[in-house]
Amino acid sequence: MQANPVIETLLNHRSIRKFKNKPLTEDQINLLVRSAQAASTSSFTQSYSIIGVDDPEIKKQLRIIADNNQMYVEENGCFFVFVADQYRNKQIGEKQGADTSILDTTQRLIVALGDASFAAQNMAVAAESMGLGICFIGSIQNDIDKTAALLGLPEGTFPFFGLAVGYPDQRPEQKPRLPLEVIFHKNTYKKDIPEKMMDTYDQKVRTYYKTRTDNRRDDTWTAEIARGLSAPARMRLKPFLEKQQLGRR
Amino acid sequence: MQANPVIETLLNHRSIRKFKNKPLTEDQINLLVRSAQAASTSSFTQSYSIIGVDDPEIKKQLRIIADNNQMYVEENGCFFVFVADQYRNKQIGEKQGADTSILDTTQRLIVALGDASFAAQNMAVAAESMGLGICFIGSIQNDIDKTAALLGLPEGTFPFFGLAVGYPDQRPEQKPRLPLEVIFHKNTYKKDIPEKMMDTYDQKVRTYYKTRTDNRRDDTWTAEIARGLSAPARMRLKPFLEKQQLGRR
Repeated sequence: MQANPVIETLLNHRSIRKFKNKPLTEDQINLLVRSAQAASTSSFTQSYSIIGVDDPEIKKQLRIIADNNQMYVEENGCFFVFVADQYRNKQIGEKQGADTSILDTTQRLIVALGDASFAAQNMAVAAESMGLGICFIGSIQNDIDKTAALLGLPEGTFPFFGLAVGYPDQRPEQKPRLPLEVIFHKNTYKKDIPEKMMDTYDQKVRTYYKTRTDNRRDDTWTAEIARGLSAPARMRLKPFLEKQQLGRR
Repeated sequence: MQANPVIETLLNHRSIRKFKNKPLTEDQINLLVRSAQAASTSSFTQSYSIIGVDDPEIKKQLRIIADNNQMYVEENGCFFVFVADQYRNKQIGEKQGADTSILDTTQRLIVALGDASFAAQNMAVAAESMGLGICFIGSIQNDIDKTAALLGLPEGTFPFFGLAVGYPDQRPEQKPRLPLEVIFHKNTYKKDIPEKMMDTYDQKVRTYYKTRTDNRRDDTWTAEIARGLSAPARMRLKPFLEKQQLGRR
């Protein structure tokens, strides 16, 4: 099976966590947003918004929320926040005299999370094809109320994640992915994970971390996954969604 | 701003609802899944699975769940179901003696929905770059319990959507997207939608529907959005997620 320039771009992805101090141009931003918009959207509802953040103070505050050390939240070409958005369609429905109460259902929330993600992934792919680098930032959810306030988000909206885009100032190794056979199932879900396959993968990840850290980090994927389970995180999300009238029923 | 072959592929997207009767090869499927896996994944958790469905009976059942008339759910090159998946990491955590109870949090559910969507959008882009067509199928959620049972899905999993992939047997017009200025906000969310911009967009969508239906459908986007609000849908989703131990707190 021959790859092509598009698939090469996809397979070449690595997250960039250090950007040059060079803002994106308006033309670049427009092309990125248009690429995002071209993605599929559930039932044509287009239930998402994109907020392009270049205001230094807002970026700084987002970086503090995300993690003081994640300088790439602040220092990049542009920082985009992808928002699951029922507010727009609520306005539109109300103008037409419709009862908009169903926008608080789980179905609508899930659709909006999908729409926002498809758009974001398209933007990520477009950026990489332009020689830019990207990093998804889920940790803007660390203080979800503050993030929403900073961005002036109304009811019916949820800031899902950020996407830092900019000129790469590093060339990290690619993070190895799970064996295809572990992610991919044929016709029905196979519950058993082949032990040997996971051992091989763990060694691959160990090598990756050793290389990345000059031998300082000795770790495997399964150990990392297990460690990540130690404490629940971002417990404000559920009440926040409720407050925003999302996924209530 | 110059586009490139990747961005051209993105901007050229249209959903395909009629495929030729020609199955994808194993090589094609592998390349699609590898492209999907190359997408970003939150905190390296890889919280998703992909089920490739080629069994005619399972496809037929999924088509009946989705909508009897959506023949493209059954007739395509391969049908992929993207699953938000905490089951795998639960197994891995348990093997390491970890307390896995936090996998039922909203944070973990949201992360898994993102991971599954990023992977799916990458697969969609890869498919289109290979000359294949795609259509996302959210309506496998119409009978979420039956879909889960058909695919043998264990606790901790949620079948988010399907992706029909195959050789296009139609060349539909592109569906016009909202004006960039409506989707895109600068630094903070702007609540007002410029009325005139929406009127222009409504006319664009009207022309699109008239062209697609030989003048039979006279419709605008805002009217379609308002109509879509008439009744809540898929009200089993919330209790189903609860049952699957997802997003409980």
